[in-house]
Amino acid sequence: MHRMFTVLLTIISFHALGQQEDSLMIRAIADNILTEGKAYENLQVLTKQVGGRLSGSPQMYKAEAWAQKALQAAQPDKVWLQECQVPHWVRGAREQAWIAGSSSNKKILLDVLALGNSVGTGPKGILAEAVLINSFDELEKKAAELKNKIVFYNYKFNDRFINTFDAYGDAVIYRAFGPSRAAKYGALAVLVRSMSHSAHNHPHTGALSYIDSLPKIPGAAVGKDDADKLAAILERDQHVKVYLRTNAVMLPDTLAHNVIGEIKGSEFPDQVITVGGHLDSWDPAEGAHDDGAGCVQSIEVLRVLKAIGYKPKRTIRAVLFANEENGTRGGLKYAAEGKAKGEQHYFALESDEGGFTPRGFSLTMSPAQLAKVRQWIPLFLPYGAHEWIEGDSGADIGPLNETFKTPLAGLHPDSQRYFDIHHARTDVFEAVNKRELELGAINMVALIYLVDKYGL
Amino acid sequence: MHRMFTVLLTIISFHALGQQEDSLMIRAIADNILTEGKAYENLQVLTKQVGGRLSGSPQMYKAEAWAQKALQAAQPDKVWLQECQVPHWVRGAREQAWIAGSSSNKKILLDVLALGNSVGTGPKGILAEAVLINSFDELEKKAAELKNKIVFYNYKFNDRFINTFDAYGDAVIYRAFGPSRAAKYGALAVLVRSMSHSAHNHPHTGALSYIDSLPKIPGAAVGKDDADKLAAILERDQHVKVYLRTNAVMLPDTLAHNVIGEIKGSEFPDQVITVGGHLDSWDPAEGAHDDGAGCVQSIEVLRVLKAIGYKPKRTIRAVLFANEENGTRGGLKYAAEGKAKGEQHYFALESDEGGFTPRGFSLTMSPAQLAKVRQWIPLFLPYGAHEWIEGDSGADIGPLNETFKTPLAGLHPDSQRYFDIHHARTDVFEAVNKRELELGAINMVALIYLVDKYGL
Repeated sequence: MHRMFTVLLTIISFHALGQQEDSLMIRAIADNILTEGKAYENLQVLTKQVGGRLSGSPQMYKAEAWAQKALQAAQPDKVWLQECQVPHWVRGAREQAWIAGSSSNKKILLDVLALGNSVGTGPKGILAEAVLINSFDELEKKAAELKNKIVFYNYKFNDRFINTFDAYGDAVIYRAFGPSRAAKYGALAVLVRSMSHSAHNHPHTGALSYIDSLPKIPGAAVGKDDADKLAAILERDQHVKVYLRTNAVMLPDTLAHNVIGEIKGSEFPDQVITVGGHLDSWDPAEGAHDDGAGCVQSIEVLRVLKAIGYKPKRTIRAVLFANEENGTRGGLKYAAEGKAKGEQHYFALESDEGGFTPRGFSLTMSPAQLAKVRQWIPLFLPYGAHEWIEGDSGADIGPLNETFKTPLAGLHPDSQRYFDIHHARTDVFEAVNKRELELGAINMVALIYLVDKYGL
Repeated sequence: MHRMFTVLLTIISFHALGQQEDSLMIRAIADNILTEGKAYENLQVLTKQVGGRLSGSPQMYKAEAWAQKALQAAQPDKVWLQECQVPHWVRGAREQAWIAGSSSNKKILLDVLALGNSVGTGPKGILAEAVLINSFDELEKKAAELKNKIVFYNYKFNDRFINTFDAYGDAVIYRAFGPSRAAKYGALAVLVRSMSHSAHNHPHTGALSYIDSLPKIPGAAVGKDDADKLAAILERDQHVKVYLRTNAVMLPDTLAHNVIGEIKGSEFPDQVITVGGHLDSWDPAEGAHDDGAGCVQSIEVLRVLKAIGYKPKRTIRAVLFANEENGTRGGLKYAAEGKAKGEQHYFALESDEGGFTPRGFSLTMSPAQLAKVRQWIPLFLPYGAHEWIEGDSGADIGPLNETFKTPLAGLHPDSQRYFDIHHARTDVFEAVNKRELELGAINMVALIYLVDKYGL
């Protein structure tokens, strides 16, 4: 509670100063975005004409071409591509899975999606007894029973967390590390309950992370209702067999690009302020919230600054990063090339929590910088951003902080609907509300404007 | 800005006190609702098995029966029906409308919905030249041209308002008073651009309000894209005719009921705290957000207080009001009967702005009461309710304030998606997110609990 107390005091001291000019500028930004914004229209083109755009896929290249055009339309001083090598994982034909059953001849189909970066099962698939595992503790206890089995992690998303990202952080270790931890004990494959509390049964994919010293076994996400079904059957009968066939393959790394647009600073052109989202997305959906939203909002930052005639003191770059989902190679390359060129990375902001109504920002910076930016909160309250908390700011800009100690911010929208769509077929354009997307962009532009004007 | 300053100071003084016990109680309320809540399930039954439930319709009676059962399942001390007479407006067969055109033989269909309480056109419909009117100022200027015409109000929802209810308040006068104001100058019928900034073309209905001294002419809402189309045509050709047929009829008042559940207070049983939503809804949709959400959240208040074993000092009533949409007769009857019986109405809370993520409360109370409730804000911050503003609290509880000076609160959820669904075919169960609905209920229960415990 101490943190909140400090925040409120800084709000009040800023309030006493008053900042009529900034308030009017942010109002002008908001008016422009709400009445002439291009974010929603851009998102429609990206999602409907390009669609899912996993690293190395033909759609990824189409998305890069789209991004160049969309950035150019925002009329920055310069648009360019920055090369990077990315993993090239291909899902292949649709996965098949079913509960074979020991006591019934009828097979029960399971809706599954291979986990990103997973190996495939081979063309015959894997038919094996499944073992219900509710936690890593239980995995260790049952270690002796796992040889030649399919391990089914049924760890549930915890509904008690108010911020759903906390539930994700709590559960995602089963998706990330579950396959290797099961392989250690001789398991043949892994099914993971989807990281979601949504009302539907669509599986939610996402990358796994193999431990190099252990055998690589296939992993797949199973829908929530199907997970309940499978768990209930395994509780009754421990010799039930499950069939899984996934067709994924990891090809050699391939070429991709960060797509970058820049407005040159008038006073401190060497100080770079980056705003970004990631251009890649999982293949079964349209990548609308994750992270088409962050891409079109970042483009919107450049567009609206030009449209209202604001001339930044510092250089403002919108970066649509490659390969966040299964490698973060775009973000790593951007920081590495910045270092090689001796760039100064002054501040970075990412939007990668969906295009929902904004609630605030998640900040990675020094206490003094935190205190400074929190003085601006009153300017944001009319537009919804009231929670300015310390926390992760975004995977793609993380390397800037590691390399340059760049202070970071992540847009922090309302999280309630995010895990209805995250890495699932439901992440489509129709799940995005125009005004919510625009309000996110307004808060992003406002923060960039204030950092540019007052420094950090 | 002065108001905000006061709020923050009261937050801090409360913060210094600390209220660990209340914080734990609200956490218990939240845990129960997020893991064992019935609001979403109840809403599914109401929307899918009952559907739209306009006053006097067969579905209204079905909804009353559902409400009794759902309230009983929450296990309050008592459930009963309170009779009231309600308007009985019937839409009749689906409306028809088209642009007849003078320069083309092809008619262009318009998607329209008759306005609630509107008279019908008669079986032949009305074919007349349409006049494009962008504001009431323009109506007065063109008064001489309106005789025997169809007036088309094309006043646009203003996207610049951040709270969309402000845009609604700005535009809704055309729906409410447009028909009578046009009738004054001899118009035959009125089309009104829908009160919405959504991306779709569905018309948004809602009640009109006839001025008794003027002829009653039919009114209908036209979808946004169709409104743009009609406006563009009328700008080119002022003699274009429009055909409108609506089949609505106002029957004599009929019997309806407020459905009420009550937990008797242990210490001050005569002091009644009311929490409610309205049971009626417009007919073309399922009334999911408006106001099925408020109904199931109100039932949830009783359910969770019983479930966690909280014994209120004061009497807590959940009231599912009849007839908010086209008469507010349920709210009027509840206050009138309370007065007749000498009841003490201590506090009332309504949820009628949709089942979206909560942002705060809209309060109608004295400055001293405002200061007191605002001390509680820190307890609500983890659950999203940070904006505690003065303003309207709800149509159904308004009469309690008028009759008893009862202090009021209205749940104030995020408003960005509300006018996508308000009074339109899109107000269906699928537009409601389970967790957003539950977070609203959590904040409602927390406020009821604190008012019950500490008084006002």
